[in-house]
Amino acid sequence: MLVYRNRLLTPGPVELHPKALEALSRPQLHHRSDAAKQVFLQAKRGLEQAFQTQGQALLLTGSGTSGMEALVQNLFAPGDRVLVPVHGNFSERWARIAQQAGLEVERMELEWGRVVHPEYLEGPSGPFQGLLLTHSESSTGALNDVQGLAQAFKARFPQALVVVDAITSLFVSEFALEGWGLDAAVAGSQKGLMCPPGLAYVALSPRALECLKPRGFYLNLASELKVQNSGESAWTPAINLVAATAAVLEELLPHLPEHLALKQRQNQILYTTGQGLGLKPVPEVQSPATTCFYLPEGTAYPQVKEAFARRGATIIGGQGQLKGKVFRVSLMGYSDLYDAYAVAELMREALRSQ
Amino acid sequence: MLVYRNRLLTPGPVELHPKALEALSRPQLHHRSDAAKQVFLQAKRGLEQAFQTQGQALLLTGSGTSGMEALVQNLFAPGDRVLVPVHGNFSERWARIAQQAGLEVERMELEWGRVVHPEYLEGPSGPFQGLLLTHSESSTGALNDVQGLAQAFKARFPQALVVVDAITSLFVSEFALEGWGLDAAVAGSQKGLMCPPGLAYVALSPRALECLKPRGFYLNLASELKVQNSGESAWTPAINLVAATAAVLEELLPHLPEHLALKQRQNQILYTTGQGLGLKPVPEVQSPATTCFYLPEGTAYPQVKEAFARRGATIIGGQGQLKGKVFRVSLMGYSDLYDAYAVAELMREALRSQ
Repeated sequence: MLVYRNRLLTPGPVELHPKALEALSRPQLHHRSDAAKQVFLQAKRGLEQAFQTQGQALLLTGSGTSGMEALVQNLFAPGDRVLVPVHGNFSERWARIAQQAGLEVERMELEWGRVVHPEYLEGPSGPFQGLLLTHSESSTGALNDVQGLAQAFKARFPQALVVVDAITSLFVSEFALEGWGLDAAVAGSQKGLMCPPGLAYVALSPRALECLKPRGFYLNLASELKVQNSGESAWTPAINLVAATAAVLEELLPHLPEHLALKQRQNQILYTTGQGLGLKPVPEVQSPATTCFYLPEGTAYPQVKEAFARRGATIIGGQGQLKGKVFRVSLMGYSDLYDAYAVAELMREALRSQ
Repeated sequence: MLVYRNRLLTPGPVELHPKALEALSRPQLHHRSDAAKQVFLQAKRGLEQAFQTQGQALLLTGSGTSGMEALVQNLFAPGDRVLVPVHGNFSERWARIAQQAGLEVERMELEWGRVVHPEYLEGPSGPFQGLLLTHSESSTGALNDVQGLAQAFKARFPQALVVVDAITSLFVSEFALEGWGLDAAVAGSQKGLMCPPGLAYVALSPRALECLKPRGFYLNLASELKVQNSGESAWTPAINLVAATAAVLEELLPHLPEHLALKQRQNQILYTTGQGLGLKPVPEVQSPATTCFYLPEGTAYPQVKEAFARRGATIIGGQGQLKGKVFRVSLMGYSDLYDAYAVAELMREALRSQ
């Protein structure tokens, strides 16, 4: 069948917001020009609004992983003890980054797909300097109640910092840094913000700003904090992506609640459709960032991928221990109800054709 | 005067190659798709050709500085002794990165604008594990003979690694990694390749690949070496910029010698014009990446900047100890002889108006 345009139904990168594409087609900005500084500050302020922080949002040129490492490296010293619940590919990444940075990592192993329940945090014996959480674990499609977890953890360790991977939750699910008792978070440009990959966004609460233990060079947050409030960055930023960030934020922030409701509804439609086809969802609690279903008995992932591809859509399989066992379909990118209807019907046809 | 389009005459970011803009306006690629892997490998192979290496080129999502830190962190261990000639803002950056990474740094201080002469390397008493050089020191406009320097250094310390910042020399001036006796180099997307900022390119000679001492997480080169030959990257890459890189390389590589001759000629035209106006060049040896002139007696930088801006062009001033003393004009971006003529005449008018 003729396909005019392939649709990206992956949990990042995603279908771009037209305002991002428009920003990327502009002539090159010099990052030290007044125009660039204005755009940088607009992006920074917009991100602070999205993270709901009175502290600071920072833009780093790198993938979300660079932002995760920046937070670990700048908030904890070697030898500090952190608790890391591991229940997917991205929570596993927290554990590895912390270990590589010389922290003492207490892993709490959970079955992939499960979420962390506040009472689980009553077990491990402290003291801990930090808790590293994954809000939306997109490898399994699970959403953690990071607010409840922060509360439970801080009841035991009031001095500890709670650091959250919000890479596939910011702009997709509700988020409130200080309001939820969190101290720092990280997000990325190629997820809920519908921009290309290349920027990490980190947020530091006023308390996290007081606890900074800066390390490293490129990912040293003290260097960035010195200059980003003037619309500059310590090193040449991916300023074209900063401009795309600012442009999409301008469109998105005025109606963020409606946008989150849409993402929720789209995901419900896909889950309802999949369950109607007899598919079993992987996550214990569903994140609106992506659906994640076990493959039907006797069906291999490449067949499902191919069935979607023939109909003009790119989906993605499992990662880590879920590789070859699941498939994931996401409408986190630029899309609305119309797309959810199209993808629901496409999913029906693709899976019935197996 | 009406200006239809501002021209960026800065030594990075630069005027974009139309093929870069075209690549950036395409729909989002998923970095794990076959199409993306093909583009990634095309960029990687093209960069290896440009660096002239039989080793490996790697693409990192970050600024040139991230590539500098990656090389220092992965080629040297804490306590290793490195020699760093310091004669500008970027050679100063080498020294700081090496120090921050726990290396023992022997600084060789030179006047800014001077180049390093091979005989200077006979002085410092070894042993040294490395020499960190800046090929084109764009803060002063100076070009180092890195081939002669590598030869002189290795005559004394044959086991040492010579690591070169080629950020404003690759695609602007001749370069040959192993052919010149160099072990590793770094470049950036927003310079001679005429793409937006956001990617660092590093090159490792076969010998450097044998000497790897991987450290860190995001900038760990062992993680990248494992996957980049399959067209993947350890962390989500700025795949849109990778596509831009591949697109420009495809245009540029077949006639690279003519391109370098053009950059050389453009810079000569600007230096000849400036000297005809009584301006004194800063660099002892001129890099084709940028001109750098001392400001005329009694003229402040903002006046010169403004005189260029009124005529539709953005230039840049000095950095570090040259701040307020010099101005720089570069045609490293997408431009040909026509632009050199325009900028020469613009410079004449702008400076006579002072």
